[in-house]
Amino acid sequence: MSAYVRTFGEIPGYPEGWSPPTGKRAEIQRVGIHARNIAGISGTAAEGADAIVLNGGYPDDDDRGLVIIYTGHGGQDSKTKKQIADQDLKDPGNAALVKSQLDGLPVRVIRGSGEKSPYAPTNGYRYDGLYRVLRHWFKTRDDGFRVCQFLMVKIGSPYDVLDPEYPDSVTNEGALSTSESSIEPVHRTETTVYKANRRAGIVKKLKALHRNLCQVCGKAVNLPSGPSSEAAHIQAIGVPHNGPDVIENLLCLCPNDHLRFDNGAFYLTDNLEVVDTLGENPSYKLRTHPDHKIGIEYVRYHRSCWLK
Amino acid sequence: MSAYVRTFGEIPGYPEGWSPPTGKRAEIQRVGIHARNIAGISGTAAEGADAIVLNGGYPDDDDRGLVIIYTGHGGQDSKTKKQIADQDLKDPGNAALVKSQLDGLPVRVIRGSGEKSPYAPTNGYRYDGLYRVLRHWFKTRDDGFRVCQFLMVKIGSPYDVLDPEYPDSVTNEGALSTSESSIEPVHRTETTVYKANRRAGIVKKLKALHRNLCQVCGKAVNLPSGPSSEAAHIQAIGVPHNGPDVIENLLCLCPNDHLRFDNGAFYLTDNLEVVDTLGENPSYKLRTHPDHKIGIEYVRYHRSCWLK
Repeated sequence: MSAYVRTFGEIPGYPEGWSPPTGKRAEIQRVGIHARNIAGISGTAAEGADAIVLNGGYPDDDDRGLVIIYTGHGGQDSKTKKQIADQDLKDPGNAALVKSQLDGLPVRVIRGSGEKSPYAPTNGYRYDGLYRVLRHWFKTRDDGFRVCQFLMVKIGSPYDVLDPEYPDSVTNEGALSTSESSIEPVHRTETTVYKANRRAGIVKKLKALHRNLCQVCGKAVNLPSGPSSEAAHIQAIGVPHNGPDVIENLLCLCPNDHLRFDNGAFYLTDNLEVVDTLGENPSYKLRTHPDHKIGIEYVRYHRSCWLK
Repeated sequence: MSAYVRTFGEIPGYPEGWSPPTGKRAEIQRVGIHARNIAGISGTAAEGADAIVLNGGYPDDDDRGLVIIYTGHGGQDSKTKKQIADQDLKDPGNAALVKSQLDGLPVRVIRGSGEKSPYAPTNGYRYDGLYRVLRHWFKTRDDGFRVCQFLMVKIGSPYDVLDPEYPDSVTNEGALSTSESSIEPVHRTETTVYKANRRAGIVKKLKALHRNLCQVCGKAVNLPSGPSSEAAHIQAIGVPHNGPDVIENLLCLCPNDHLRFDNGAFYLTDNLEVVDTLGENPSYKLRTHPDHKIGIEYVRYHRSCWLK
């Protein structure tokens, strides 16, 4: 069998709704939709998870169609299928899904007839399109064991929102009083938006080259799943700056320095010196990587937005 | 004349489309839609901008209807209307619009017949609804002077997206090659989403009490417009956690610690000690404010998502 090539997103020739004629996992693996023959998660901590299978493997799965609460892998006795240990993020499958979450990677979802859900196929398996991991956490079950869970939403569905926490977004001001307690779930309004299509490949390459270390402060944000960083455009994308979505127009930054950069707290000289506009820090050289060339035209554009 | 009460969002009785019958600015001020009689921006650096008027005051305005590039205030000779100095963020009106940007506050937009735009009314003024400030920057004009500009989008329109930079969001992976240069503007797809309605009042109160200092690391992210922070829910909002949008369920955090908190890099004990799950830092007491009570039930819920 040829080596599995991990690809994210749609596999040409196998669109949403496709079912393997034989009804077997092996065929899903053969055509490149999922790397594994038995395990639910396809992926690695370094690359991310490219696909998952929902087939009733864990009773904690909660399949709501456009929204799935998917259980991670591990701690299950392979013969009895009983949980005998906790799950954790050392498991490569779980780490892979967290990587997909933090990098915003699409995950192919395959449902199997073994799943107890109105969305499961009656026989075999069915590829049901691309989902995004929004967040993860650990649940302690009634039997006392701990499982990892992932909130996944269908890409392009109304649930496919950027995490509403980032950044604060409000439509109207409420009263400045804690007695105005609204202990109901946060209401949501349906609205149509234009979402920017960004390319995952350059984000992954950027973060890999810099090992998630911020080019300005030199630190990564360390999470249980590993180090984390953000890909920041130098010349902003969107109107009116219309910066291109290319790696030469990206910096690998921690969230704090990304916010500072986008709001003019510092700029870069043509020599890639970091100059603090508030005068809090002396100037110093930006951290760079020989395989990540930074476009001087984008640096100059950004500088022109903040400096005369 | 009674004192102006700054209110954000819609003013009851004056819906989108309302025009003052007299056609005068004074009436707009009288009914509480805009604080000022002449100046374009209504607001303060501390509170944010609650309204703006587009009336041709600056030739750099670019009114595209649902999207407005609005010029800031300052540096203009009041008699000749010529620019004679640069604009900056010391100007209270400009600082107010940046505050609205960072806090996600809605800004009422009033168009006047003095504006040269297909969207301007033929006479007098018209209230055209709520807009959000997405970003700001400085433009150096042909005459060499520098003006502050604000990208504003109609709330609820397809352009009302959270900044696509936060966080990385991709729909499909591109090739890992810089030769795949797409030097066109980033494409956008139209899609329907559910957007969380969060209440601005508690965010403002939280940040004011803590002076934008992170309750975990003690630092604010300092921007030219002033210190910045984020309001993070302790028990996450949305499915399946369904935490309430109340101040007792919020922490004032810098972006880095917000990311760490939401992904289990630390948790809080019942005594509000910050415990690092990666063992990088010794435990210490969370910074608190006597007027910001933290709900212990939300702290426990968050902890249960990460600790057994």
